[in-house]
Amino acid sequence: MTTYHHSFRVPFDQLDPGGVLFFGHLFGHAHRAYEAFLREIGFGLATLLEAGETALPLVHAEANYHHPMKLDDLIEVELEARAIGERSFTLGYRFWKGEVLCASATTVHVAVETGSGRSLPLPDPLRRGLAAYLADA
Amino acid sequence: MTTYHHSFRVPFDQLDPGGVLFFGHLFGHAHRAYEAFLREIGFGLATLLEAGETALPLVHAEANYHHPMKLDDLIEVELEARAIGERSFTLGYRFWKGEVLCASATTVHVAVETGSGRSLPLPDPLRRGLAAYLADA
Amino acid sequence: MTTYHHSFRVPFDQLDPGGVLFFGHLFGHAHRAYEAFLREIGFGLATLLEAGETALPLVHAEANYHHPMKLDDLIEVELEARAIGERSFTLGYRFWKGEVLCASATTVHVAVETGSGRSLPLPDPLRRGLAAYLADA
Amino acid sequence: MTTYHHSFRVPFDQLDPGGVLFFGHLFGHAHRAYEAFLREIGFGLATLLEAGETALPLVHAEANYHHPMKLDDLIEVELEARAIGERSFTLGYRFWKGEVLCASATTVHVAVETGSGRSLPLPDPLRRGLAAYLADA
Repeated sequence: MTTYHHSFRVPFDQLDPGGVLFFGHLFGHAHRAYEAFLREIGFGLATLLEAGETALPLVHAEANYHHPMKLDDLIEVELEARAIGERSFTLGYRFWKGEVLCASATTVHVAVETGSGRSLPLPDPLRRGLAAYLADA
Repeated sequence: MTTYHHSFRVPFDQLDPGGVLFFGHLFGHAHRAYEAFLREIGFGLATLLEAGETALPLVHAEANYHHPMKLDDLIEVELEARAIGERSFTLGYRFWKGEVLCASATTVHVAVETGSGRSLPLPDPLRRGLAAYLADA
Repeated sequence: MTTYHHSFRVPFDQLDPGGVLFFGHLFGHAHRAYEAFLREIGFGLATLLEAGETALPLVHAEANYHHPMKLDDLIEVELEARAIGERSFTLGYRFWKGEVLCASATTVHVAVETGSGRSLPLPDPLRRGLAAYLADA
Repeated sequence: MTTYHHSFRVPFDQLDPGGVLFFGHLFGHAHRAYEAFLREIGFGLATLLEAGETALPLVHAEANYHHPMKLDDLIEVELEARAIGERSFTLGYRFWKGEVLCASATTVHVAVETGSGRSLPLPDPLRRGLAAYLADA
């Protein structure tokens, strides 16, 4: 099984008054790992946006928080596909600070037609890219 | 049963290129409803921060997205307590645009000692305030 | 002279570790006051976005910070037009906490054709709306 | 003269509905370059926060926007010191996409005592670090 790795450093403007990453910002970082992952599998969102036909909105997101992330912490995000359906897919994320698991997250995305919002089958290149990172494959 | 109501207008800088609220921003809005709720029950975070002894970090957050929220949409957040434990509590949120349920969310918070991070019993005024908004009470 | 008034409460997720509003978030709040102002003068950005022909990007933004804004502070934003050109306009903002001036800001916007980015004359309804809020008029 | 270089990729959640970086987010990126710069000169904000005695709040920020920054654009931030006073300093930033100058920014910071907010002389290690990156030195 292959996981995709992406890292970020905790910035000052995402700290709360207690000096730790505000929980809501975790989802932005999950999405950035996802953006990098899509570029990696040759299905970048920039191209998708330009084509203007398909979007991949989220229908579900969740996270568990285990350990606070602090200013300048270098966090490694480990991404994998958890499920690949006809018209949706599920991604899993783990946020590591060295050996410490700080948080984990899950997002569920669907493919829709831009404008109408009608459900669509997952585009083939996306499906193939996801399959290469499917957990327990 | 009583629910707490808070509203916000979808701002320009939280839209994605598709013109809808970016999913991650929902959690900030949930938290703002929670902040207003805490003021309402006389347990504002500003006072808690100043005292500097207790914090209420999240250990879990999740959301389901049903309907896009767009620029200038007036969204009503309906908040209720879902569970009140010894040392933790769970809040539920529904995001309404008129009669349309756009999203729902859940957050789980624990009480900890600032600095040490040691788990604490929920402060009594918080427990009483939550109890008044407990679902199906 | 008329100024436009808009208010917001400082939210938890925009505080820095020192417990004060992170400077960069001031611009988001200025923009929200501007969005409310545009709705007030009957030229809402939602309509402009939907028409898809004209955009009003910023070419300049600046702010001075005088007094920290803290959690739950109710801030009143006072907005006025400072200059109205053929193809651009300048807005001024003051951020008050009661009688205390916490910050001030200026933004300069241009009218452009969506897509091409070509400069356009300001739309008439916008020009008229701005004129009613022009400082020292 | 030496400038400090830092780069970032434009993320999805900072795009506006026109598909370009929302102007207000530029300041967050300027601050992240500044955070990286402070680490580089051995005066990281994490250490400063932990010591809890000195803060470096902004009293002024401004930016000019020349060219839109889009999803996945790799932006190089070029940072230099523009002025070093007894109790304040000014930083300049240029945001490059390849050879194209997309934006420029300036921030003015003061040294203050945490808590009281009383003005302080710049700490010596900070002064020395800034001096090595002073424009036209």
